[in-house]
Amino acid sequence: MENLHFAATEIKGGFWRFYFDMVKNSTTQAVYDRFAETGRFGALRCDWKEGEPCRPHIFWDSDVAKWMEGAAYLIERERDSALEKIIDDCVDLIEKNQREDGYFNSHFLTVRPDEVFKHRHDHELYCTGHWIEAAIAYHKATGKDKFLKLMRKNVDCIYRIFVEEESAAFKTPGHEEIEIALLRLYRYTGDEKALVLARHFLDRRGIGNPGEPDEGGDAKQNQDNVPVREITEAVGHSVRACYLYTAMAMLAKEDGDDALKAACDRVLDNIVTKRMSITGGVGANRSGEKFSYDYDLPNEYTYNETCAAIALALFAGEMQEIEANSLYGDIIEKVWYNGFISGVSLSGDHFFYTNPMEIDLSKHKHDGIWLPIVERVKVFGCSCCPPNVVRMLGSIGRYMYTVDGDTVYCNQFVQSETKLTVGGGDAVLTQETDYPASGHIRFRYSGKPVTLKVRIPGWCEEYEGETMNGFAEYHLTDGDEVTVELPMNVHFMEANPHVQDCAGRCAVMRGPVVYCMEGVDNGGDLRDVTLIDNGNFEVSAEDWVPCPVITMDAERRAATDALYRRRNGERVVFRAKLIPYLAFANRGASDMIVWTMVK
Amino acid sequence: MENLHFAATEIKGGFWRFYFDMVKNSTTQAVYDRFAETGRFGALRCDWKEGEPCRPHIFWDSDVAKWMEGAAYLIERERDSALEKIIDDCVDLIEKNQREDGYFNSHFLTVRPDEVFKHRHDHELYCTGHWIEAAIAYHKATGKDKFLKLMRKNVDCIYRIFVEEESAAFKTPGHEEIEIALLRLYRYTGDEKALVLARHFLDRRGIGNPGEPDEGGDAKQNQDNVPVREITEAVGHSVRACYLYTAMAMLAKEDGDDALKAACDRVLDNIVTKRMSITGGVGANRSGEKFSYDYDLPNEYTYNETCAAIALALFAGEMQEIEANSLYGDIIEKVWYNGFISGVSLSGDHFFYTNPMEIDLSKHKHDGIWLPIVERVKVFGCSCCPPNVVRMLGSIGRYMYTVDGDTVYCNQFVQSETKLTVGGGDAVLTQETDYPASGHIRFRYSGKPVTLKVRIPGWCEEYEGETMNGFAEYHLTDGDEVTVELPMNVHFMEANPHVQDCAGRCAVMRGPVVYCMEGVDNGGDLRDVTLIDNGNFEVSAEDWVPCPVITMDAERRAATDALYRRRNGERVVFRAKLIPYLAFANRGASDMIVWTMVK
Repeated sequence: MENLHFAATEIKGGFWRFYFDMVKNSTTQAVYDRFAETGRFGALRCDWKEGEPCRPHIFWDSDVAKWMEGAAYLIERERDSALEKIIDDCVDLIEKNQREDGYFNSHFLTVRPDEVFKHRHDHELYCTGHWIEAAIAYHKATGKDKFLKLMRKNVDCIYRIFVEEESAAFKTPGHEEIEIALLRLYRYTGDEKALVLARHFLDRRGIGNPGEPDEGGDAKQNQDNVPVREITEAVGHSVRACYLYTAMAMLAKEDGDDALKAACDRVLDNIVTKRMSITGGVGANRSGEKFSYDYDLPNEYTYNETCAAIALALFAGEMQEIEANSLYGDIIEKVWYNGFISGVSLSGDHFFYTNPMEIDLSKHKHDGIWLPIVERVKVFGCSCCPPNVVRMLGSIGRYMYTVDGDTVYCNQFVQSETKLTVGGGDAVLTQETDYPASGHIRFRYSGKPVTLKVRIPGWCEEYEGETMNGFAEYHLTDGDEVTVELPMNVHFMEANPHVQDCAGRCAVMRGPVVYCMEGVDNGGDLRDVTLIDNGNFEVSAEDWVPCPVITMDAERRAATDALYRRRNGERVVFRAKLIPYLAFANRGASDMIVWTMVK
Repeated sequence: MENLHFAATEIKGGFWRFYFDMVKNSTTQAVYDRFAETGRFGALRCDWKEGEPCRPHIFWDSDVAKWMEGAAYLIERERDSALEKIIDDCVDLIEKNQREDGYFNSHFLTVRPDEVFKHRHDHELYCTGHWIEAAIAYHKATGKDKFLKLMRKNVDCIYRIFVEEESAAFKTPGHEEIEIALLRLYRYTGDEKALVLARHFLDRRGIGNPGEPDEGGDAKQNQDNVPVREITEAVGHSVRACYLYTAMAMLAKEDGDDALKAACDRVLDNIVTKRMSITGGVGANRSGEKFSYDYDLPNEYTYNETCAAIALALFAGEMQEIEANSLYGDIIEKVWYNGFISGVSLSGDHFFYTNPMEIDLSKHKHDGIWLPIVERVKVFGCSCCPPNVVRMLGSIGRYMYTVDGDTVYCNQFVQSETKLTVGGGDAVLTQETDYPASGHIRFRYSGKPVTLKVRIPGWCEEYEGETMNGFAEYHLTDGDEVTVELPMNVHFMEANPHVQDCAGRCAVMRGPVVYCMEGVDNGGDLRDVTLIDNGNFEVSAEDWVPCPVITMDAERRAATDALYRRRNGERVVFRAKLIPYLAFANRGASDMIVWTMVK
């Protein structure tokens, strides 16, 4: 089974067209501008001297590379000489400054040339991973091969140092990512060296690294606590973790490695049943940006980095190439419509690094108590998320379809037209839908006979047709149409009783979309609001947000002078307005709540 | 009006006899032992040399002094040669090491002799304040006058430096306390210099201190942001704040200063209606151990230092000497039975510095996230609270009665016998009660005619008799008995809707006592428990705790495998056990909750 390449699908309208246009018309330029201003592109000149401003940071290369990868995805859909000029200039600089043996890293080459591969936690291999992915994307988009050649030379260098000579001061990356890139490179070029190197980095992990300078560090934080095939729980830095799990899934597929696949299943189950916000956000513990223990999912204090949600979707996306199970599409959908897309403003140029599940603005007056930020900003010192948004949105559609011979799995619902090959011939599959505004999806097919398996989302308990592993099956021939109807009701979801912060509270969902209330619509003291589950829900479109809003009856306590008083049942009834979580904080800083009381 | 001296009242039994026996038989010795072990008593020898262990800390003197004050209260009730020997030896050391001009501070004399009165925030005057209070208490208990003389000489020194010469590097104490002590000294000795110095320290506060080295500090943290008569809200370090307000109330009384009294009223109202836990705990913000903004009363993260609760009771205790208003007794009662007494274990030898309102043991696995400790410990580095418990319990009864000519206000209910003077003759007033187990209090009186005004607690909304300013009035003559009946029902209290952490939750109270659930009785996931307000409450005594426990019907959700699921009403009914908040964490570390759901 293989995920269909994103570019096979043209997004024709609806929710994801809004976001595709946004990334094309706003986000790509906005991120470029911020990165240029802060010296990230200039760093590739490798001419920085001590005392000058814009000291190249250890992860700036990855920022630029991710932006280039995202831009390449846009170029692949439509050539763009301005974008290509930027990338070509970058590639020229890399070529000029690449070490003779293939090594390239703008930080180490300029700031610490004598310390190459001496510091496990300084993101060298992580940066290289992103360079490799950018190079693949750019080659595929343009056919230009310089960038890819430079990066293959870089891979040769790393292979020599880490596999042949074992001369680096550490054995595996402190921040995973290159493993994914190497497996993509192997798949794209067939280069066995890339496969061996990826396997090496995965197999070396968690078996101890005697003599390494960083050995005393927190092995869990870097997923170095157990060998990958023995992993049972998601630990440590959540982005690193999910990048690792993604690579594990890719290698499990390449090698037919059942033990590795089983480890992927276990860790994904641990995430989905114990360590994930209802938005698909992961990494609840801000201390170390990491997975916390089972059921520790704070709402105000959660970290839920945008990159971690993206990484979780990558992981699930690779899993759906190994096994036909709607769970993977469910996870991707949850991330897509909630915890990932909340990371970017509707204007496309402001970003969240952390994605809180609840905001009490007054709490931000606390001195010294950490809380996620309440409004998106243009750039961060650690700015991994904005270019990750560019590459994710630039390739939206990448996990929509999985093809297995003449069977096509439809994992996601997007107004779109997809070109694919079925039975050796060209075929076209279109979706007409305004999902998630409605759950009505009409498929049209032209081509040789195909089996279409449509994911019936886990949230859709009302679906009445037959399913197998979560998919409804249709046999289509040329000219066929089929309509899938997913009842789109408003639901109140409760969390496991072990989730302390959600006790006595529910989250409102409609389809895959998690809703929240904001102070700007509903006034203050949102924690005191009780929604009324009486069916009197109104779902309607509003111009500013590409997904319906919901109003419903609600009540709250009347104001009182006393700090404490005997319980009484006096309540003020009002009409509450709920907006998609993805759209919070787009109308200024505001109180916000996902988990509310319900009666 | 004057509060009757505590020693006029003999505690005959019941709740406070338990605690008096505890402090006498356990706490006093336990605190002494810890302080001796850690070098606090030895520091008075002033022979510490650089490089030696047990470097005298800036606030060790205050620890020893508070212990001595508490021990003196025990001695006042019953002479004790062992305790007196300890104190006499300390006094001899102070005499030996006191500077010729009267200055004494074991830290500065040994560690930084050249830096006397150069550092506003190094607790010098705070320590002196506690020395003065200890000296008064010891003189009153024993008649021995050496200690008091030494401390009066110390006051002379401070008066010269701060009032006459203004030669210190700062104008007012960074940590208030000495103001209280000076006013007590004035009341005890009539020494006008003490009154002038106290007035000076209060009047100088909040008017800016140009040229002081610490001027750039956080003026709010030290209550130096506004002149005392303009105070409208409780700010900064909660112990310092409440000590300041206590001194303000004392001076307002001495000077008949209405503006100062009005400031006291405003700040007390701010505390009681916006910044106090239901237990009487104050200082919600752990960053700076300080008052937070209005209605910010977190349950798990609150600070609620034991000393701050004590200081709030001191403040209310002085206010009730100015105005006959049951509010003051209500506050003292709330503190006594909850947020103060929770600071000491039932064994008397373990202490809380912070008093959380909720404990989720699993949260303590979080790295890097501050939470209050979950079990009392024997000693702290900053060990202000344990000796404050000694002096508070040693003088329990100090705010029971306030006398105004031939009117006696009964503010607190204690099984006791009190000797007092009425109409120029000896009188005896006894209370027979097992309060707060029951609300039945029988007063017996012998003596000349008296007006007894009994505080009807604010919590007792069922009381049906007439009251004036919250007091029921009885005219008693020799041999009279009168019984006050305060209906003791179980109540569910709710917090103001602005208190985010308590939204949708209630606290159980019975009389003045706040209850909580512990995991040891009720299992885990306490936030998911809903108490059922069906009147099926059972109140019963248990041996290990000097106050009844309560059982009632409750329900919780059944365990589930899913992390998120559609809301359903399935519940498991069980019998919940609630214990007095004051007794939590006496049976090992446990989950604990005060604010629960109720239906």
